[in-house]
Amino acid sequence: MKLVIATLARQALVEDLGGGDLTTLYTIPPHLQGTGELIARQAGVIAGMAVAEQVFKILDERLKFSCLVEDGQAAAPGDVIARVTGRLRPILSAERTALNFLQQLSGIATRTRRWAGELKGTRARLVDTRKTVPGLRVLQKYAVRMGGGYNHRLGLDSGILIKDNHIQAAGGIREAVEAVRNKAPFTCKIEVEVKNLDELQEAIRSRVEIVMLDNMDTAAMARAVSIAGGRVLLEASGGIEFERLKEIAATGVDLISCGALTHSAPALDISLNVTGKN
Amino acid sequence: MKLVIATLARQALVEDLGGGDLTTLYTIPPHLQGTGELIARQAGVIAGMAVAEQVFKILDERLKFSCLVEDGQAAAPGDVIARVTGRLRPILSAERTALNFLQQLSGIATRTRRWAGELKGTRARLVDTRKTVPGLRVLQKYAVRMGGGYNHRLGLDSGILIKDNHIQAAGGIREAVEAVRNKAPFTCKIEVEVKNLDELQEAIRSRVEIVMLDNMDTAAMARAVSIAGGRVLLEASGGIEFERLKEIAATGVDLISCGALTHSAPALDISLNVTGKN
Amino acid sequence: MKLVIATLARQALVEDLGGGDLTTLYTIPPHLQGTGELIARQAGVIAGMAVAEQVFKILDERLKFSCLVEDGQAAAPGDVIARVTGRLRPILSAERTALNFLQQLSGIATRTRRWAGELKGTRARLVDTRKTVPGLRVLQKYAVRMGGGYNHRLGLDSGILIKDNHIQAAGGIREAVEAVRNKAPFTCKIEVEVKNLDELQEAIRSRVEIVMLDNMDTAAMARAVSIAGGRVLLEASGGIEFERLKEIAATGVDLISCGALTHSAPALDISLNVTGKN
Amino acid sequence: MKLVIATLARQALVEDLGGGDLTTLYTIPPHLQGTGELIARQAGVIAGMAVAEQVFKILDERLKFSCLVEDGQAAAPGDVIARVTGRLRPILSAERTALNFLQQLSGIATRTRRWAGELKGTRARLVDTRKTVPGLRVLQKYAVRMGGGYNHRLGLDSGILIKDNHIQAAGGIREAVEAVRNKAPFTCKIEVEVKNLDELQEAIRSRVEIVMLDNMDTAAMARAVSIAGGRVLLEASGGIEFERLKEIAATGVDLISCGALTHSAPALDISLNVTGKN
Amino acid sequence: MKLVIATLARQALVEDLGGGDLTTLYTIPPHLQGTGELIARQAGVIAGMAVAEQVFKILDERLKFSCLVEDGQAAAPGDVIARVTGRLRPILSAERTALNFLQQLSGIATRTRRWAGELKGTRARLVDTRKTVPGLRVLQKYAVRMGGGYNHRLGLDSGILIKDNHIQAAGGIREAVEAVRNKAPFTCKIEVEVKNLDELQEAIRSRVEIVMLDNMDTAAMARAVSIAGGRVLLEASGGIEFERLKEIAATGVDLISCGALTHSAPALDISLNVTGKN
Amino acid sequence: MKLVIATLARQALVEDLGGGDLTTLYTIPPHLQGTGELIARQAGVIAGMAVAEQVFKILDERLKFSCLVEDGQAAAPGDVIARVTGRLRPILSAERTALNFLQQLSGIATRTRRWAGELKGTRARLVDTRKTVPGLRVLQKYAVRMGGGYNHRLGLDSGILIKDNHIQAAGGIREAVEAVRNKAPFTCKIEVEVKNLDELQEAIRSRVEIVMLDNMDTAAMARAVSIAGGRVLLEASGGIEFERLKEIAATGVDLISCGALTHSAPALDISLNVTGKN
Repeated sequence: MKLVIATLARQALVEDLGGGDLTTLYTIPPHLQGTGELIARQAGVIAGMAVAEQVFKILDERLKFSCLVEDGQAAAPGDVIARVTGRLRPILSAERTALNFLQQLSGIATRTRRWAGELKGTRARLVDTRKTVPGLRVLQKYAVRMGGGYNHRLGLDSGILIKDNHIQAAGGIREAVEAVRNKAPFTCKIEVEVKNLDELQEAIRSRVEIVMLDNMDTAAMARAVSIAGGRVLLEASGGIEFERLKEIAATGVDLISCGALTHSAPALDISLNVTGKN
Repeated sequence: MKLVIATLARQALVEDLGGGDLTTLYTIPPHLQGTGELIARQAGVIAGMAVAEQVFKILDERLKFSCLVEDGQAAAPGDVIARVTGRLRPILSAERTALNFLQQLSGIATRTRRWAGELKGTRARLVDTRKTVPGLRVLQKYAVRMGGGYNHRLGLDSGILIKDNHIQAAGGIREAVEAVRNKAPFTCKIEVEVKNLDELQEAIRSRVEIVMLDNMDTAAMARAVSIAGGRVLLEASGGIEFERLKEIAATGVDLISCGALTHSAPALDISLNVTGKN
Repeated sequence: MKLVIATLARQALVEDLGGGDLTTLYTIPPHLQGTGELIARQAGVIAGMAVAEQVFKILDERLKFSCLVEDGQAAAPGDVIARVTGRLRPILSAERTALNFLQQLSGIATRTRRWAGELKGTRARLVDTRKTVPGLRVLQKYAVRMGGGYNHRLGLDSGILIKDNHIQAAGGIREAVEAVRNKAPFTCKIEVEVKNLDELQEAIRSRVEIVMLDNMDTAAMARAVSIAGGRVLLEASGGIEFERLKEIAATGVDLISCGALTHSAPALDISLNVTGKN
Repeated sequence: MKLVIATLARQALVEDLGGGDLTTLYTIPPHLQGTGELIARQAGVIAGMAVAEQVFKILDERLKFSCLVEDGQAAAPGDVIARVTGRLRPILSAERTALNFLQQLSGIATRTRRWAGELKGTRARLVDTRKTVPGLRVLQKYAVRMGGGYNHRLGLDSGILIKDNHIQAAGGIREAVEAVRNKAPFTCKIEVEVKNLDELQEAIRSRVEIVMLDNMDTAAMARAVSIAGGRVLLEASGGIEFERLKEIAATGVDLISCGALTHSAPALDISLNVTGKN
Repeated sequence: MKLVIATLARQALVEDLGGGDLTTLYTIPPHLQGTGELIARQAGVIAGMAVAEQVFKILDERLKFSCLVEDGQAAAPGDVIARVTGRLRPILSAERTALNFLQQLSGIATRTRRWAGELKGTRARLVDTRKTVPGLRVLQKYAVRMGGGYNHRLGLDSGILIKDNHIQAAGGIREAVEAVRNKAPFTCKIEVEVKNLDELQEAIRSRVEIVMLDNMDTAAMARAVSIAGGRVLLEASGGIEFERLKEIAATGVDLISCGALTHSAPALDISLNVTGKN
Repeated sequence: MKLVIATLARQALVEDLGGGDLTTLYTIPPHLQGTGELIARQAGVIAGMAVAEQVFKILDERLKFSCLVEDGQAAAPGDVIARVTGRLRPILSAERTALNFLQQLSGIATRTRRWAGELKGTRARLVDTRKTVPGLRVLQKYAVRMGGGYNHRLGLDSGILIKDNHIQAAGGIREAVEAVRNKAPFTCKIEVEVKNLDELQEAIRSRVEIVMLDNMDTAAMARAVSIAGGRVLLEASGGIEFERLKEIAATGVDLISCGALTHSAPALDISLNVTGKN
């Protein structure tokens, strides 16, 4: 993830700084020292410390960054979660970019932790999707893990998911599964999306490893669990919100995937408090 | 914005496709044709059509993309907002990336439209901040405009905003303003962030053009408006949520800036419905 | 693969052309037309036509490129495999770069076709490895498929392969498998590398999906097949050369992986024959 | 070459790691230390140590890399050629990428050393061509030098080589040479490719500095040497394989260029042996 | 500016070095040490030290670079302005690139210092334009500041300048100003270009903040100052050369913008004097 | 040069446009058509038409660009040198970037044409140097050719020039020349820089192909010509300005290299005249 972080942190700084931080350039003497404290303003789970650190270090590699609340740990309102010390100019110029990463990723970790809590005591795992913010997928999926969730495939090249259009073009579930099994890397499990229990049975007969139950109601899911009898992993999917999690988990499905973890988690409020001449 | 779109659309496709869309590659014949309809699943304001089109066109420049609901227009649930026709493979491979952009940006436009509605009949404008998702600032600020909001400065190099740390380092509001006025591009207005009404008065005496009222309660804002008497633009700022908008606008401030427009707007639900052999 | 091709073709042209093709610039009039014929000088399997076409088109999008022998088809010595027509300057300037791609990839397809032929009539598939030429992995793995081979995982992020160092660090095969099963994307099968039959049995007990038999002799492989009894896929691996393929396939293993397909396949001899004023 | 190495090493790591090394991430504790020994499994000439070192250092700049067999030196089977110490995670994640470079480049150096040996005692030098693997030209030409070979021009912008199409378009050898001499950088020697001895004589009359004898038999080359009488450098070229080197060198030509040095040299077998907790 | 410098310095080195510094590679032993002195050959104002240092450090981070004349300070002919010590190879290979930056930027600072001197004792400030050398704008505008000049807007996205085509398309000055005021970031002042005094009066009535007097003669400018009466900033513009500066400044305009500062300032002569084995 | 132009044109547009052309965006309706005429404001030689065209086309590929004065041709003040027609927005947004390239390159072509005129009737050629503006070398060297000048080596990797530091490190001229001749690509001529006539004689004895006479007075150059007697090319070098060209050419040297062609040529004044609704 180090390479991804290096690239994204640099791009984000270029986006914000462009030709330079005019206000800081003309008001802060170049050698003035200071300390910035990153403070959680809401309760939540922290994720993204390594990105925040990298953002500061790109502007000045001599800045000292110490992390007080590690990724995956909870912070209470007012907690100092990290501290950065050194020249004040780079601290102020990097502030917004570092916070934008940290708030976004901690927002995801926080929502994931809360949602995953609904699944306690069931066999179901909370998993993410490919519905991520363009450019941030690797980081957002990392934040999901920090919140206690699990990752679905990273991208179209690292997993097989046969959907209705694929099935239709191939001439049926069995035909699509055969085509893929004959060609795709043997290291990938094969997952098929089904809309009803007939399709589920055909998928099981085709010996896929995972079946996605698309937009089924809870009763149908329960019957799917009973039909599958452990022969395939079952993934509940389709616009699932917090309120339904417990009920779905109770059906016995193995996986519940939620796009809202990554595309709609509100940012966690975090701010930087700077003290100069330190 | 054309250059920004071209770059981001390509990067997002690379992120999702990597070595290729394995499932589509092995199930969809290369020359099979199809049509995809982009359908709004929720009511909202659309933004990002040009990005979605670019995503499809990068994978196959012969795809035909027709936009039925333009950026800034409202869509009702079930509305077909765009249609893409051509080879099925690139349509399916680009689907998720196109939707990820469209959902994110339409989510911002939708929230902005609703929040801006609270300011109807007042002098206040709803403006965005630099609290954007890393990499997407230009697009997110565009979505804010499509929702009827206004843009604050694009980045640290295109506007002056003197905050407490700058003031402290410069030795006072007047000193900071002088330093900036002597040096920064004369095309930028100078904005100062103040925490109380004394600072407001010093800022006005320093002849700044804009004053940001940071985290003030409504009563203080009302007094600020009366003190300023139109000599400076007043911007209300600081964790402002939907519920307070009407009350703040009633004080007579000129601008209300909300980070939540860009960092926490939930995605608008949009899906792609594909028909093969069309 | 379109995005990968576009990027690599451009980089390779920049590498060869730099500041320009001096010889062509000073001897060929800018509007002189010509036709180039790509001719196989050896018998082999062609791969890389889309890259070659892209190389020519980047220098002049009006060049006409027609493919006469498609990827995956065999060519005999002297066969014209493609034809490019238009301005002579870009044809000559792109020649070497187009050929370098085509020769490299056709070399891989050719070797793969020949080696895969040794496995005819057995259950074994010939698969590639991550031992590819830096920068060309996606293309090289494509060439393997064109030759009739199969792909192993694309990279470290799209498959699980637990090797001795992972096992040792985790405290044993079972511990390593558990750790991965609890965390890694559930869409990946788990593969473990084993050095002897005891480890094979522990791997099977840990319910992995694939076992790599590392540097075993043929007798050991045969016993492994008998032990596994179809409960796991078995992959023969470790410096396997052409001469041993038949014998290994006869043991009943499912997969035989060969780094030499990609890191050491000699280029297929292909040349460009140009006729001017055509 | 430092800049080239930095860029290529990073690209290759991104290609292999993508979203991360899943297996290592979930089995190796982040702070576990280890030592890796790079071991030659075949006899050969080493090239590419600086690239291998850079690959490891990009993932963790605190890794200690010590080179035991320097570029250009021979290694025997079993020789430890380098050692890398530090955190085990980056060592394992970088392993394959580092080896892929080292094996490729050492394979070229090894073949070059062996082939150059055939020219001992003659005036002929073994030189490379532009038939290199796309993206790796600078490194491959470096490996040729490490093997005792010499470099032809780096690219189309750093040397003049007038071939038959250029001659035909310009209206003859003399016309082409004149056109180039009048325009191209005066720092480049002019080389002309000839197919027979008549063309050789015209080239000499045109006062070129180098003549490439294209696909001539040995007798013709000997006559060419006698005709040239030292007035031009003579380069033997055209699908030259190991078996003909001695005989060609004996004709007295100055240069023998072989594409097979770079496009078809088999990789040298090198592996990494890792010891944890060290 | 650190990010801009890092990117430009690297690109410039790649441009000059490409596949490597052949002469240095074959004549200078790799570990030979040396010291280079950067010496001003003409009187001038120095700008660009940080770029020069970065250029050397990219090739070898262990080089010691000490700056003796800082940016913005004057140097006399023969002055040693900086010293770089370490391995001789990177010093020689970076020499030309470092000098090319330093000469260009110091040339701009030198011309700016001299031209700004003509404005001493007047209210007029000397400002730059967007007529910069492609790729170097941020650095060139920095050099203008080092010479004592001021910056106009950085680019099209960070300032408003309404020209005749905008006015014509919008239907008049007032209409154009209204359109912009309603939409553009409120942090930008609005500037309008006028060709005569009638337009100036309309611009003032439209309450713009800045008016550019385009290609007016001195008498017209003086009348413009009197008409404006301090209600707007007045910028004199249009092919202004050194000879007219005093006379224009005497009219009382606030700003005089000169493209020639950046597009036509002759380079300052600076050379590198190297002593080996030091 | 097509690839270089594409990259530079895009980078320059990004530099100027950033988040967008605010003024044009808010005043020009998106579908308004117009025509822009590029007009020479001074007499000069045009260079860079292809770059200007590319700049416009990147923003809108449907713009029609017609070139009326081709690269290398002279323009008189007032001449329309090109015309661009289509949507007004991209024409206005691209204007400054297109002009910045065209003015810079035409400035170089213009100075080169004038300076080269001083050498008429002598054997001397006017050549450029590596003293170019970072990032623009390939284009600037092209402009020199358009002005009637000749190119020296493109970069450090495409020519050999042995200077005093190389000589000193190698232990003498002969030693340096030997070292290079043994190793560098045989396609490069070897050039040595000499400071006096003794060194010239040693260089000739070492059988170099070119000798650079560094900072010699005219009398010394004349003697050098007589000493060389045609055995080497002689290049006069070192801060040579326009005034000395005739006198130096009269000595009989073969080449006169002038850094001032590229680092200090004033821009040629060119403007864009736009007519809307056309």
